[in-house]
Amino acid sequence: MKQNNSNAFQILQTDSGTRARRGRLMTSHGMVETPVFMPVGTQATVKAMTPAELEADGVSMILSNAYHLHVRPGEDLIARAGGLHRFMGWQRPILTDSGGFQVFSLATMRKIREDGVEFNSHVDGRRLFLGPREAMAIQRGLGSDIAMVFDECAPYPCDHKYACQAMERTLTWAAVCSQQARADGQQVFGIVQGGTYDDLRRQCAERLAAMGFDGYAVGGVSVGESEDLMLASASVSLAQLPEEVPRYLMGVGHMRQIVEAVALGIDMFDCVIPTRVARNGSALTRTGRYPLKAARYKEDAEPIERGCGCYACRTFSRAYVRHLLNTDEILGVRLLTIHNLHRYMEFMRDIQVALETGAFAQFRKTIRETVVKE
Amino acid sequence: MKQNNSNAFQILQTDSGTRARRGRLMTSHGMVETPVFMPVGTQATVKAMTPAELEADGVSMILSNAYHLHVRPGEDLIARAGGLHRFMGWQRPILTDSGGFQVFSLATMRKIREDGVEFNSHVDGRRLFLGPREAMAIQRGLGSDIAMVFDECAPYPCDHKYACQAMERTLTWAAVCSQQARADGQQVFGIVQGGTYDDLRRQCAERLAAMGFDGYAVGGVSVGESEDLMLASASVSLAQLPEEVPRYLMGVGHMRQIVEAVALGIDMFDCVIPTRVARNGSALTRTGRYPLKAARYKEDAEPIERGCGCYACRTFSRAYVRHLLNTDEILGVRLLTIHNLHRYMEFMRDIQVALETGAFAQFRKTIRETVVKE
Repeated sequence: MKQNNSNAFQILQTDSGTRARRGRLMTSHGMVETPVFMPVGTQATVKAMTPAELEADGVSMILSNAYHLHVRPGEDLIARAGGLHRFMGWQRPILTDSGGFQVFSLATMRKIREDGVEFNSHVDGRRLFLGPREAMAIQRGLGSDIAMVFDECAPYPCDHKYACQAMERTLTWAAVCSQQARADGQQVFGIVQGGTYDDLRRQCAERLAAMGFDGYAVGGVSVGESEDLMLASASVSLAQLPEEVPRYLMGVGHMRQIVEAVALGIDMFDCVIPTRVARNGSALTRTGRYPLKAARYKEDAEPIERGCGCYACRTFSRAYVRHLLNTDEILGVRLLTIHNLHRYMEFMRDIQVALETGAFAQFRKTIRETVVKE
Repeated sequence: MKQNNSNAFQILQTDSGTRARRGRLMTSHGMVETPVFMPVGTQATVKAMTPAELEADGVSMILSNAYHLHVRPGEDLIARAGGLHRFMGWQRPILTDSGGFQVFSLATMRKIREDGVEFNSHVDGRRLFLGPREAMAIQRGLGSDIAMVFDECAPYPCDHKYACQAMERTLTWAAVCSQQARADGQQVFGIVQGGTYDDLRRQCAERLAAMGFDGYAVGGVSVGESEDLMLASASVSLAQLPEEVPRYLMGVGHMRQIVEAVALGIDMFDCVIPTRVARNGSALTRTGRYPLKAARYKEDAEPIERGCGCYACRTFSRAYVRHLLNTDEILGVRLLTIHNLHRYMEFMRDIQVALETGAFAQFRKTIRETVVKE
């Protein structure tokens, strides 16, 4: 590995009753307070939002995607434009996923080789190839602050034999990734796979840890398994990972799940929920979600969530936003996205404050009792 | 007529070489500098824009629509929410069209009666009825600053006989409209119809003028006729209308057409062009439009329009906006809408300055020579 930025993460406080930590992650584009939630900007845009609106919502870091940006518009184009930050006008940190997950979920006609995967683009059917070398070169071109290794995300359910093969490939590829050149100051995170099998998760985490990454992710979760299995996979993986670096649970999740994962010692999260739920017309609140298109909000003069300080709630009524959603007006989706992301950012801030003030146990209890299980 | 606000309009300057005027229109929600262009907010939202973004673009007045708001969400709901301004969070002036145009273009199964039109809603097929009384009651409920009379917009082409009947109905309905109660401070504008027939236009304008409206619109234009015919209709109508009140050319138009209509003495305009063109992926500039999705902008690091001060041009490259459009990202449409409306607002400001400085003839010549005819 060319560089190890293990001093980039600082644990400010640990919780007495759980493994939760309050931390601070230094990147090439500034500091990130953890636990952190990264909104998803797959195609170099967090859907419906400007960078200025993301900042106003309190977003400190976003996720983007090597696979999607490789397909359109191509990492070379972005590199020539000065890198992903400059291309999309976002000056705060960006983590890029390697494309492993997309190759194994979106692409068709996959042919897995030792050095990577041949597949057809989900956009135009073009034959493409991605492996650890390619994924790292793409992320180097994008210039993200954190690059993820190229992994194989096994489906759920999946038998032990296949999960083991996928894990072995993930480890081989991780080793190759760790040897690739990086963008200036770029950190690289390993990804723990192993399906829902504790022995594989343990082994994968242990062998990855020996490679000495800047941080580690728990991958292959939130792919259809139960919440309990997901948290168990995270827990068994974390037990074999170093404490002093950031740990990231990929693709999770609901607010309830985030609190539970923080309790296990997870520092970073990403999920499409707040933005996708907005496009489906639902609002997220402190106590769960509700469908704003419902007839009962027709004349409702309240904001989307009472007491919320986001632009949408400061300016418009539920009745107006509902009207926009029901007439398919873009502004409806925009306002709900602004609100839902604001809700998630406030939620992460609440977790941080709870950890700072020794109130995490109480906070976790409140979430368990008040947030509707989805 | 309950009220005549004819002092609401002030002509600050007239052009020596044409009938163009630089004016100022006072409304219940503030002053509007004319000639003015009103972006279209059919469904209580200018598509893809927040009120804050409209203000940042320099928009001083918008148009909304009685027919659409009657169908969804209903004027009673909006009235109970405190009126259209409060409902949509827009504190500057609003002009509402009466619904006449929509009834005669969008609705199906029309049955014209003496007191109005029965028709099927274009949304759900519901049987509805709109006439002069209903249209004025809707606009009173909405609380717009300027309400338009309920008119019959004849199609193009249309024979003299039908155009004459439609004109007579328009005049009868205008008289009824002028007798209806209004919202506080609401102004009412008459609409000149008569198709492309000079005798009908003259007669309609003269008889409307005798009713003493707060302002007058030239309607039934931009419905498929040539640009020359459109301008001729406007010209012959204007000759019979009072000079001292505002004159509005409905649904026009391209930048070239606006300059020509200003030269005839028109003060107000509305058109979907800047917003619709944005949704179709084209940018408007000082010299015409271009399709930003075109391959030649793939790596273009320039802003949408060089020298433009809008948020989109200050922040993003053509290459980025093109990528967003090509991946169907909402932000692409948003950024182009911000730019196109900004271009129109700057264009109107240029016309105003040209009138203030005696440079209108030169400005008109430049537009004729540089703006591509569409």
